Amino acid sequence: MQPVYQANAQLDLTFTRLVDVPRALIWRAWTEPALLMPWFCPLPWKTIDCEIDLRPGGLFRTTMQSPEGAEFPNVGCYLDIVPQEKLVWTNALLPGFRPSQPAATSGSDEVNFLFTAMVELADAEQGTRYTATVIHADEAGCKQHAAMGFEAGWGAALDQLVAMVQRGF
Amino acid sequence: MQPVYQANAQLDLTFTRLVDVPRALIWRAWTEPALLMPWFCPLPWKTIDCEIDLRPGGLFRTTMQSPEGAEFPNVGCYLDIVPQEKLVWTNALLPGFRPSQPAATSGSDEVNFLFTAMVELADAEQGTRYTATVIHADEAGCKQHAAMGFEAGWGAALDQLVAMVQRGF
Repeated sequence: MQPVYQANAQLDLTFTRLVDVPRALIWRAWTEPALLMPWFCPLPWKTIDCEIDLRPGGLFRTTMQSPEGAEFPNVGCYLDIVPQEKLVWTNALLPGFRPSQPAATSGSDEVNFLFTAMVELADAEQGTRYTATVIHADEAGCKQHAAMGFEAGWGAALDQLVAMVQRGF
Repeated sequence: MQPVYQANAQLDLTFTRLVDVPRALIWRAWTEPALLMPWFCPLPWKTIDCEIDLRPGGLFRTTMQSPEGAEFPNVGCYLDIVPQEKLVWTNALLPGFRPSQPAATSGSDEVNFLFTAMVELADAEQGTRYTATVIHADEAGCKQHAAMGFEAGWGAALDQLVAMVQRGF
Protein backbone atom coordinates (compact mmCIF):
# COMPACT_ATOMS: atom_id res chain seq x y z
CA MET A 1 0.00 0.00 0.00
CA GLN A 2 1.25 3.48 -0.87
CA PRO A 3 1.93 5.90 1.99
CA VAL A 4 -0.89 8.39 2.37
CA TYR A 5 1.49 11.34 1.96
CA GLN A 6 1.48 12.62 -1.62
CA ALA A 7 4.59 14.69 -2.35
CA ASN A 8 4.17 17.99 -4.16
CA ALA A 9 7.30 20.01 -4.93
CA GLN A 10 5.31 23.26 -5.23
CA LEU A 11 3.67 22.84 -1.84
CA ASP A 12 6.17 20.98 0.33
CA LEU A 13 9.53 21.71 1.92
CA THR A 14 11.74 18.80 2.89
CA PHE A 15 15.27 17.95 3.83
CA THR A 16 17.13 14.79 4.82
CA ARG A 17 20.20 14.55 7.04
CA LEU A 18 22.29 11.70 8.38
CA VAL A 19 22.91 12.23 12.07
CA ASP A 20 25.15 10.23 14.36
CA VAL A 21 22.64 9.52 17.13
CA PRO A 22 20.27 6.60 17.59
CA ARG A 23 16.70 7.11 16.47
CA ALA A 24 15.30 5.98 19.83
CA LEU A 25 16.86 9.09 21.40
CA ILE A 26 15.73 11.39 18.59
CA TRP A 27 12.23 10.06 19.16
CA ARG A 28 12.44 10.87 22.85
CA ALA A 29 13.73 14.38 22.04
CA TRP A 30 10.65 14.94 19.88
CA THR A 31 8.07 13.47 22.23
CA GLU A 32 9.06 14.35 25.81
CA PRO A 33 8.54 18.02 26.74
CA ALA A 34 11.61 18.21 28.99
CA LEU A 35 13.75 16.84 26.16
CA LEU A 36 12.12 18.91 23.41
CA MET A 37 12.37 22.37 24.95
CA PRO A 38 16.19 22.61 25.03
CA TRP A 39 16.63 22.23 21.25
CA PHE A 40 13.32 22.99 19.52
CA CYS A 41 14.00 26.68 18.71
CA PRO A 42 17.24 27.85 17.17
CA LEU A 43 18.99 30.09 19.71
CA PRO A 44 18.66 32.92 20.67
CA TRP A 45 14.96 32.00 20.51
CA LYS A 46 13.81 29.65 23.24
CA THR A 47 11.00 27.18 23.80
CA ILE A 48 9.74 28.05 27.27
CA ASP A 49 6.73 25.74 27.51
CA CYS A 50 5.62 22.48 25.92
CA GLU A 51 2.72 20.08 26.33
CA ILE A 52 2.46 16.76 24.52
CA ASP A 53 -0.48 14.31 24.42
CA LEU A 54 1.08 11.71 22.16
CA ARG A 55 -1.84 10.09 20.36
CA PRO A 56 -3.81 10.86 17.19
CA GLY A 57 -5.97 13.86 18.02
CA GLY A 58 -3.74 14.75 20.96
CA LEU A 59 -2.36 18.18 21.78
CA PHE A 60 1.09 19.38 20.70
CA ARG A 61 1.62 22.81 22.23
CA THR A 62 4.75 24.92 22.46
CA THR A 63 5.47 28.48 23.48
CA MET A 64 8.40 30.15 21.82
CA GLN A 65 10.10 33.23 23.21
CA SER A 66 11.92 35.79 21.13
CA PRO A 67 15.24 37.27 22.28
CA GLU A 68 13.24 40.39 23.25
CA GLY A 69 10.99 38.30 25.50
CA ALA A 70 7.84 38.22 23.34
CA GLU A 71 5.95 34.93 23.60
CA PHE A 72 4.48 33.03 20.65
CA PRO A 73 2.17 30.13 21.46
CA ASN A 74 1.65 27.35 18.94
CA VAL A 75 -1.08 24.74 19.16
CA GLY A 76 -1.36 21.67 16.96
CA CYS A 77 -2.75 18.18 16.85
CA TYR A 78 -0.98 14.88 16.32
CA LEU A 79 -2.20 12.87 13.34
CA ASP A 80 0.02 9.83 12.95
CA ILE A 81 2.46 8.32 15.41
CA VAL A 82 4.71 5.34 14.66
CA PRO A 83 7.13 5.17 17.58
CA GLN A 84 10.73 5.78 16.56
CA GLU A 85 9.72 5.98 12.89
CA LYS A 86 7.22 8.68 12.06
CA LEU A 87 5.60 11.64 13.78
CA VAL A 88 2.96 13.70 11.98
CA TRP A 89 1.10 16.73 13.32
CA THR A 90 -0.71 19.77 11.96
CA ASN A 91 -1.72 23.27 12.96
CA ALA A 92 -4.80 22.96 10.71
CA LEU A 93 -6.49 21.09 13.55
CA LEU A 94 -6.67 21.75 17.26
CA PRO A 95 -6.68 18.91 19.79
CA GLY A 96 -9.61 16.56 19.33
CA PHE A 97 -9.36 17.12 15.55
CA ARG A 98 -11.23 20.45 15.72
CA PRO A 99 -10.48 22.60 12.65
CA SER A 100 -8.40 25.64 13.55
CA GLN A 101 -8.39 29.10 12.05
CA PRO A 102 -4.96 30.21 10.82
CA ALA A 103 -5.03 33.27 13.06
CA ALA A 104 -5.79 31.11 16.08
CA THR A 105 -2.75 28.89 15.78
CA SER A 106 -0.06 31.42 16.56
CA GLY A 107 0.40 34.81 18.11
CA SER A 108 3.03 35.63 15.52
CA ASP A 109 2.28 37.68 12.45
CA GLU A 110 5.02 35.74 10.75
CA VAL A 111 3.42 32.30 11.05
CA ASN A 112 -0.06 32.49 9.62
CA PHE A 113 0.02 29.60 7.17
CA LEU A 114 -1.39 26.17 7.75
CA PHE A 115 0.94 23.21 7.62
CA THR A 116 1.28 19.53 8.41
CA ALA A 117 4.74 18.47 9.53
CA MET A 118 6.24 15.00 9.30
CA VAL A 119 9.46 13.76 10.88
CA GLU A 120 10.66 10.39 9.64
CA LEU A 121 13.46 8.37 11.20
CA ALA A 122 15.23 5.36 9.68
CA ASP A 123 18.33 3.41 10.61
CA ALA A 124 21.41 4.45 8.69
CA GLU A 125 24.85 2.83 8.56
CA GLN A 126 25.96 5.15 11.33
CA GLY A 127 23.13 6.62 13.29
CA THR A 128 19.88 7.83 11.78
CA ARG A 129 18.50 9.09 8.51
CA TYR A 130 16.37 12.07 9.53
CA THR A 131 13.80 13.50 7.13
CA ALA A 132 11.65 16.51 7.93
CA THR A 133 8.82 17.45 5.58
CA VAL A 134 6.40 20.33 5.86
CA ILE A 135 3.23 20.09 3.80
CA HIS A 136 1.43 23.35 2.96
CA ALA A 137 -2.04 24.16 1.70
CA ASP A 138 -0.88 26.47 -1.08
CA GLU A 139 2.17 27.91 -2.79
CA ALA A 140 1.92 31.19 -0.88
CA GLY A 141 2.28 29.39 2.46
CA CYS A 142 5.10 27.25 1.14
CA LYS A 143 7.00 30.28 -0.19
CA GLN A 144 6.43 32.21 3.02
CA HIS A 145 7.84 29.30 5.01
CA ALA A 146 10.83 28.93 2.67
CA ALA A 147 11.51 32.67 2.95
CA MET A 148 11.43 32.41 6.75
CA GLY A 149 14.34 29.99 6.41
CA PHE A 150 12.68 26.61 6.89
CA GLU A 151 15.70 24.48 6.15
CA ALA A 152 18.20 26.67 8.03
CA GLY A 153 15.85 26.87 11.01
CA TRP A 154 14.93 23.20 11.17
CA GLY A 155 18.57 22.31 10.47
CA ALA A 156 19.83 24.51 13.31
CA ALA A 157 17.26 22.99 15.64
CA LEU A 158 18.37 19.51 14.59
CA ASP A 159 22.01 20.46 15.29
CA GLN A 160 20.89 21.47 18.79
CA LEU A 161 19.02 18.18 19.20
CA VAL A 162 22.05 16.15 18.13
CA ALA A 163 24.35 18.12 20.44
CA MET A 164 21.94 17.53 23.35
CA VAL A 165 21.81 13.79 22.69
CA GLN A 166 25.59 13.56 22.31
CA ARG A 167 26.10 15.42 25.60
CA GLY A 168 23.82 12.87 27.24
CA PHE A 169 20.61 13.56 29.13
CA MET B 1 -7.56 7.92 29.20
CA GLN B 2 -10.05 10.56 28.09
CA PRO B 3 -11.20 10.52 24.47
CA VAL B 4 -9.39 13.15 22.42
CA TYR B 5 -12.67 14.79 21.37
CA GLN B 6 -13.49 17.75 23.58
CA ALA B 7 -17.19 18.65 23.35
CA ASN B 8 -18.12 22.30 22.95
CA ALA B 9 -21.83 23.17 22.79
CA GLN B 10 -21.12 26.47 21.00
CA LEU B 11 -19.07 24.82 18.27
CA ASP B 12 -20.53 21.34 17.80
CA LEU B 13 -23.72 19.85 16.45
CA THR B 14 -24.69 16.37 17.53
CA PHE B 15 -27.59 13.96 17.62
CA THR B 16 -28.13 10.41 18.78
CA ARG B 17 -30.65 7.94 17.43
CA LEU B 18 -31.50 4.30 18.14
CA VAL B 19 -31.84 2.42 14.88
CA ASP B 20 -32.98 -1.15 14.37
CA VAL B 21 -30.11 -2.37 12.23
CA PRO B 22 -26.82 -4.00 13.24
CA ARG B 23 -23.81 -1.76 13.48
CA ALA B 24 -21.74 -4.02 11.20
CA LEU B 25 -24.09 -3.10 8.35
CA ILE B 26 -24.13 0.60 9.24
CA TRP B 27 -20.36 0.48 9.14
CA ARG B 28 -20.41 -1.05 5.65
CA ALA B 29 -22.91 1.58 4.51
CA TRP B 30 -20.48 4.30 5.63
CA THR B 31 -17.29 2.76 4.23
CA GLU B 32 -18.11 1.06 0.91
CA PRO B 33 -18.80 3.49 -1.96
CA ALA B 34 -21.47 1.31 -3.58
CA LEU B 35 -23.32 1.14 -0.26
CA LEU B 36 -22.80 4.79 0.66
CA MET B 37 -24.05 6.45 -2.51
CA PRO B 38 -27.70 5.27 -2.29
CA TRP B 39 -28.40 6.96 1.07
CA PHE B 40 -25.76 9.64 1.70
CA CYS B 41 -27.74 12.65 0.37
CA PRO B 42 -31.35 13.28 1.34
CA LEU B 43 -33.44 12.93 -1.80
CA PRO B 44 -34.01 14.63 -4.21
CA TRP B 45 -30.26 15.30 -3.96
CA LYS B 46 -28.07 12.39 -5.02
CA THR B 47 -24.55 11.20 -4.41
CA ILE B 48 -23.29 10.32 -7.88
CA ASP B 49 -19.67 9.51 -7.12
CA CYS B 50 -17.69 8.31 -4.11
CA GLU B 51 -14.11 7.28 -3.40
CA ILE B 52 -12.93 5.87 -0.10
CA ASP B 53 -9.38 5.09 1.04
CA LEU B 54 -10.20 3.86 4.51
CA ARG B 55 -7.11 4.66 6.60
CA PRO B 56 -5.88 7.68 8.54
CA GLY B 57 -4.80 10.23 5.95
CA GLY B 58 -6.86 8.48 3.27
CA LEU B 59 -9.24 10.13 0.83
CA PHE B 60 -12.98 10.46 1.42
CA ARG B 61 -14.48 11.99 -1.70
CA THR B 62 -18.10 12.37 -2.73
CA THR B 63 -19.88 14.25 -5.48
CA MET B 64 -23.38 15.42 -4.73
CA GLN B 65 -25.86 16.38 -7.41
CA SER B 66 -28.66 18.86 -6.95
CA PRO B 67 -32.14 18.19 -8.36
CA GLU B 68 -31.23 20.68 -11.11
CA GLY B 69 -28.18 18.62 -12.06
CA ALA B 70 -25.45 20.84 -10.57
CA GLU B 71 -22.52 18.87 -9.14
CA PHE B 72 -20.83 19.59 -5.82
CA PRO B 73 -17.60 17.76 -5.11
CA ASN B 74 -16.43 17.27 -1.52
CA VAL B 75 -12.97 16.11 -0.55
CA GLY B 76 -11.91 15.12 2.93
CA CYS B 77 -9.41 13.03 4.82
CA TYR B 78 -10.00 10.23 7.31
CA LEU B 79 -8.51 10.81 10.74
CA ASP B 80 -9.57 7.99 13.02
CA ILE B 81 -11.05 4.62 12.12
CA VAL B 82 -12.20 2.05 14.66
CA PRO B 83 -14.09 -0.56 12.62
CA GLN B 84 -17.79 -0.77 13.50
CA GLU B 85 -17.29 1.78 16.29
CA LYS B 86 -15.99 5.13 15.18
CA LEU B 87 -15.28 6.96 11.93
CA VAL B 88 -13.74 10.43 11.96
CA TRP B 89 -12.90 12.59 8.96
CA THR B 90 -12.40 16.27 8.18
CA ASN B 91 -12.55 18.69 5.28
CA ALA B 92 -9.83 20.77 6.97
CA LEU B 93 -7.29 18.36 5.50
CA LEU B 94 -6.94 16.82 2.06
CA PRO B 95 -5.68 13.27 1.57
CA GLY B 96 -2.19 12.78 2.96
CA PHE B 97 -3.05 15.22 5.76
CA ARG B 98 -2.43 18.28 3.56
CA PRO B 99 -4.19 21.37 4.96
CA SER B 100 -7.06 22.44 2.74
CA GLN B 101 -8.43 25.87 2.01
CA PRO B 102 -12.14 26.25 2.80
CA ALA B 103 -12.93 27.34 -0.76
CA ALA B 104 -11.15 24.29 -2.13
CA THR B 105 -13.24 21.73 -0.28
CA SER B 106 -16.53 22.28 -2.04
CA GLY B 107 -17.93 23.82 -5.16
CA SER B 108 -20.97 24.95 -3.22
CA ASP B 109 -21.32 28.46 -1.93
CA GLU B 110 -23.39 27.03 0.85
CA VAL B 111 -20.70 24.83 2.35
CA ASN B 112 -17.66 26.95 3.03
CA PHE B 113 -16.98 26.11 6.66
CA LEU B 114 -14.44 23.69 7.96
CA PHE B 115 -15.60 20.73 9.98
CA THR B 116 -14.58 17.41 11.43
CA ALA B 117 -17.31 14.78 11.50
CA MET B 118 -17.54 11.78 13.79
CA VAL B 119 -19.95 8.86 13.55
CA GLU B 120 -20.05 6.61 16.59
CA LEU B 121 -21.80 3.25 16.76
CA ALA B 122 -22.61 1.23 19.88
CA ASP B 123 -24.71 -1.82 20.56
CA ALA B 124 -28.17 -1.02 21.87
CA GLU B 125 -30.82 -3.37 23.25
CA GLN B 126 -32.33 -3.55 19.81
CA GLY B 127 -29.98 -2.56 17.04
CA THR B 128 -27.54 0.31 17.25
CA ARG B 129 -27.05 3.57 19.09
CA TYR B 130 -25.97 5.98 16.36
CA THR B 131 -24.33 9.28 17.24
CA ALA B 132 -23.27 11.84 14.67
CA THR B 133 -21.21 14.85 15.75
CA VAL B 134 -19.90 17.68 13.65
CA ILE B 135 -17.09 19.76 15.12
CA HIS B 136 -16.62 23.28 13.79
CA ALA B 137 -13.80 25.79 14.00
CA ASP B 138 -15.97 28.70 15.10
CA GLU B 139 -19.50 29.69 16.04
CA ALA B 140 -20.18 31.17 12.61
CA GLY B 141 -19.55 27.84 10.90
CA CYS B 142 -21.59 25.99 13.50
CA LYS B 143 -24.54 28.37 13.12
CA GLN B 144 -24.31 28.21 9.34
CA HIS B 145 -24.42 24.42 9.47
CA ALA B 146 -27.34 24.43 11.94
CA ALA B 147 -29.23 26.86 9.69
CA MET B 148 -28.64 24.55 6.72
CA GLY B 149 -30.56 21.91 8.66
CA PHE B 150 -27.80 19.69 9.96
CA GLU B 151 -29.97 17.44 12.10
CA ALA B 152 -32.83 17.17 9.61
CA GLY B 153 -30.39 16.47 6.79
CA TRP B 154 -28.25 13.94 8.61
CA GLY B 155 -31.42 12.41 10.08
CA ALA B 156 -33.04 12.03 6.66
CA ALA B 157 -29.87 10.46 5.31
CA LEU B 158 -29.83 8.05 8.25
CA ASP B 159 -33.46 7.12 7.53
CA GLN B 160 -32.38 6.29 3.97
CA LEU B 161 -29.46 4.24 5.28
CA VAL B 162 -31.71 2.27 7.63
CA ALA B 163 -34.26 1.66 4.88
CA MET B 164 -31.52 0.41 2.57
CA VAL B 165 -30.17 -1.99 5.17
CA GLN B 166 -33.66 -3.25 6.04
CA ARG B 167 -34.40 -3.86 2.35
CA GLY B 168 -31.22 -5.91 2.19
CA PHE B 169 -28.29 -5.34 -0.12
